[in-house]
Amino acid sequence: MTFSIHGLAVARGIAIGRAVLVASSRVDVAHYFIQPEQVAAEIERVRQGRNTVVDELQRLQADMPADAPHELGALLDVHLMLLQDEALEEGVKHWITERLYNAEWALTTQLEVIARQFDEMEDEYLRERKADLEQVVERILRYMKGVASPVAPPVSQRRKTQQDLLLDDTVDVPLVLVAHDLSPADMLQFKQSVFAGFVTDVGGKTSHTAIVARSMDIPAVVGARAASQLVRQDDWVIIDGDAGVMIVDPSPIILAEYGFRQRQGELERERLARLRHTPAVTIDGQKIELLANIEQPDDAPAAVKAGAVGVGLFRSEFLFMGKTGNLPGEEAQYQAYRQALDGMQGLPVTIRTIDVGADKPLDKGHKDNYLNPALGLRAIRWSLADPAMFRTQLRAVLRAAAHGKVKLLFPMLAHVSEITQTLAQVDLARAELDARGVAYGPVQLGAMIEIPAAALMVRTFFKYFDFLSIGTNDLIQYTLAIDRADESVAHLYDPLHPAVLRLVADVIAEGHAQGKAVSVCGETAGDVTMTRLLLGLGLRSFSMHPAQILAVKQEVLRADTRKLAPWAQQVLQGEVPAA
Amino acid sequence: MTFSIHGLAVARGIAIGRAVLVASSRVDVAHYFIQPEQVAAEIERVRQGRNTVVDELQRLQADMPADAPHELGALLDVHLMLLQDEALEEGVKHWITERLYNAEWALTTQLEVIARQFDEMEDEYLRERKADLEQVVERILRYMKGVASPVAPPVSQRRKTQQDLLLDDTVDVPLVLVAHDLSPADMLQFKQSVFAGFVTDVGGKTSHTAIVARSMDIPAVVGARAASQLVRQDDWVIIDGDAGVMIVDPSPIILAEYGFRQRQGELERERLARLRHTPAVTIDGQKIELLANIEQPDDAPAAVKAGAVGVGLFRSEFLFMGKTGNLPGEEAQYQAYRQALDGMQGLPVTIRTIDVGADKPLDKGHKDNYLNPALGLRAIRWSLADPAMFRTQLRAVLRAAAHGKVKLLFPMLAHVSEITQTLAQVDLARAELDARGVAYGPVQLGAMIEIPAAALMVRTFFKYFDFLSIGTNDLIQYTLAIDRADESVAHLYDPLHPAVLRLVADVIAEGHAQGKAVSVCGETAGDVTMTRLLLGLGLRSFSMHPAQILAVKQEVLRADTRKLAPWAQQVLQGEVPAA
Repeated sequence: MTFSIHGLAVARGIAIGRAVLVASSRVDVAHYFIQPEQVAAEIERVRQGRNTVVDELQRLQADMPADAPHELGALLDVHLMLLQDEALEEGVKHWITERLYNAEWALTTQLEVIARQFDEMEDEYLRERKADLEQVVERILRYMKGVASPVAPPVSQRRKTQQDLLLDDTVDVPLVLVAHDLSPADMLQFKQSVFAGFVTDVGGKTSHTAIVARSMDIPAVVGARAASQLVRQDDWVIIDGDAGVMIVDPSPIILAEYGFRQRQGELERERLARLRHTPAVTIDGQKIELLANIEQPDDAPAAVKAGAVGVGLFRSEFLFMGKTGNLPGEEAQYQAYRQALDGMQGLPVTIRTIDVGADKPLDKGHKDNYLNPALGLRAIRWSLADPAMFRTQLRAVLRAAAHGKVKLLFPMLAHVSEITQTLAQVDLARAELDARGVAYGPVQLGAMIEIPAAALMVRTFFKYFDFLSIGTNDLIQYTLAIDRADESVAHLYDPLHPAVLRLVADVIAEGHAQGKAVSVCGETAGDVTMTRLLLGLGLRSFSMHPAQILAVKQEVLRADTRKLAPWAQQVLQGEVPAA
Repeated sequence: MTFSIHGLAVARGIAIGRAVLVASSRVDVAHYFIQPEQVAAEIERVRQGRNTVVDELQRLQADMPADAPHELGALLDVHLMLLQDEALEEGVKHWITERLYNAEWALTTQLEVIARQFDEMEDEYLRERKADLEQVVERILRYMKGVASPVAPPVSQRRKTQQDLLLDDTVDVPLVLVAHDLSPADMLQFKQSVFAGFVTDVGGKTSHTAIVARSMDIPAVVGARAASQLVRQDDWVIIDGDAGVMIVDPSPIILAEYGFRQRQGELERERLARLRHTPAVTIDGQKIELLANIEQPDDAPAAVKAGAVGVGLFRSEFLFMGKTGNLPGEEAQYQAYRQALDGMQGLPVTIRTIDVGADKPLDKGHKDNYLNPALGLRAIRWSLADPAMFRTQLRAVLRAAAHGKVKLLFPMLAHVSEITQTLAQVDLARAELDARGVAYGPVQLGAMIEIPAAALMVRTFFKYFDFLSIGTNDLIQYTLAIDRADESVAHLYDPLHPAVLRLVADVIAEGHAQGKAVSVCGETAGDVTMTRLLLGLGLRSFSMHPAQILAVKQEVLRADTRKLAPWAQQVLQGEVPAA
């Protein structure tokens, strides 16, 4: 029976495909498809993981201290029962054999199936018992994490595998990912996957899921409440990213209608593609710099292909978000930065130092410790709290700068003391390279303007830095005291709030006054509805996901800054946000 | 053996006494002392609560659906064992009988004792099993919450009971509260109690615990890491609130030294008390308005006694933070506001509408749902999301205004749309009272300036409001993107940051330009090290906890605004925070 689920429209376009449910789990879980000949080995991995946990619990039980609470042994018995449950074992085998899920995915999928039995119980107390099951499954997952899958296929093979999978269906059915929530690390993984659309229960217009989906130009609906509960594996679904709706089990008439709209979108995309080699110049001859935001070195070719004239924001933290959560060393980072430079074929690359911390933990386990992670130890605060780690990154960047044009960008600065500490670390990193006799190149130094205090003291920033980059997402968040991922206040998150516009306008104006470069690299830079206003405020450098460059370029080509400037001043003066 | 624990110095002074450990719990738990003749009844309450839970689990087990996972029955067996554990029962009896703890306190204290057995286990997995025990205890607590204690003594009796308690010790030994963390609701309760000092494991210089302790003028140390683990019930402790240190089991020499310092502090307090009736006028004849922040109507007499010329901030949310978490109705609120007006003996009272929500939940259970509660649905956003509840409060305030000078203050406004919605609700509340034929009085309307966006659009605010009040705590927090309760970034929370000073100065200057009143009601208003700077920036109205008024008055009496004004401008221009 057809039904629809309403959420927030966060990434435009239509996707039609079968639902793939991905269970949330406290442990990062890899999701990929295996080859049919690998089925037996994957089943064996799960068996081994489970047996290890069984052995361990039995050992704990045998070695229990004499003064231990005596209920503990009984609890361990129940957990051993849960581990050896047949429904768990048979279910995992099913998902691996029939769907070619990798072992971890199969395990969490089956956990979800069993957990639903608990969810359906009337009594809250009984429902909560599922926590015990989750704990034993997570324990298995942790063991399996230590033992890398022998069968994880390289990225390039995954697409093919994906199609092989759909044996019992028409070849080439797209898949739509449905989950309760997705972490930045999840999204990084799914970027390399084949999903045609995303739906999550939680999240706001500017949650990480929304941003990544938008930047990948893949339709997405977030804040879809109980979508992951209401949709079942393999349900046919339509994602209408324009309306923020997911239609489940659509009728043939609805399918035909959305198929038509999907083809229209593709035509528009082909039309834009023709602008690729057109220079971004306004009607009145202003040259506009359109740069790319990238997350991995291998995003660079796509940036060049989309017509970017450089990288305005290399989010280096994504190098750090591997499955293991380990920080790569100097050499590995150096290679990654060089690869990005090579990929950009001589165009400049702006590398932002790691922006993780309380709000984007490398290891999810930390998250719960902070009441307000957005206001906590993140970005440069995090780097300055671990100077050895910070200088490892700085040395890698400086060395890469010997091979191309590199700019170095620091996130979340707000205090003069932080600025001077940061610059001292750069000097120290250079001295360390000198001492080692290692070659390095010159870099321009820049700062993100993303905290209200930074925008308010922009003159001071220009004393220390060659260029500034406005991170509108965070700047809006802090200026309005709105968490952009919180649905209950998402309606108040407003890029056009007069206070936000005033801060952005002041920073751009001060850049012109000082003859120094100012760029915008937040979401608004890639939002075509904001392009004219930013041009009117004097912005001449925009950095965005490659997928957004052509649409913004179209806006630039149609713009006349002589007309936009006075209009933008009017918008600035108005107290009510303009349309 | 003497040892000391270092934390943050958040409320000055010395306290010497015996440690009272209060266990954290996810359920709000009342802590008070009972009379010896009530012991049997309290023990019976726990027994009844436990039996109810036992009955319920047995019923659940009997009614288990046929298709339920079969491990569930075994899990329930273990929980029944935990419930009927002798160590739990005997321990609870001990705390009630020997310490005269109320039933809930005894139960959580014993939970903590047993939980430590788990904590001491080497294996993480075994340690985690204590969650099951916590769950059953919380279930008992929830049942007991439904059944109010028949023996809770009125506040006035508690002091006496407290002293009766210390049978086995010298009469009159002060008690020092040691806890992992304290919620605003806890602190409200402890305000009426007898504790001579507070120590918490977590919290920053501006956490709620710190603010309340400071305002009560009670020594406190927060961020003391594992204090609640290292200190035992009844240990002798010294709190050195000036140095941020707790000394456990002090030697006689150390005790004598701190006893001397404690008496010195008392002498200084007596000296200040003589300023009570002196008008607050600077050397150059500027009259300064020193107002009180209060949380309950019965705080008013203390405010008058401390020489306050009115209430600058009645934090009405504390009316809502009873044990039940229920919102009081219009009549109850009206009585409370009238009582505050009466208590102030004709002086004006500024009532701020409820500032709860994601960060200060009425019911702790909500807290976990929001990743960044400080940036979420709180204060006016929360009120506007529930207009019926909001207008109940507005009607109560308007009715109280028939009996005295009332000002109405709205927290967390940042958007014109919010302002117009808020004012529309005031009009509607008046219309509702008209329709009912109920008398009400005139009120001045004001807004808190505590979000950067509000400070940046202060002119717009003056179009709508008669007065503004700067909430420096939140304004600093958002302007610097620092959670003031997060130890890892607490060092960056800086009231003297040039961006913060610029926003505060702009709001004060705009008030002078428009001839409208501007007050500061955040922490800085009561901080004597800030008084001269705020006077220099033109501030003429300060609102603070009554305990701080006399010390600030002393600063005012010594100040000459003709000299402070040019100096304050210099501080504003400097890029480095001034001392």
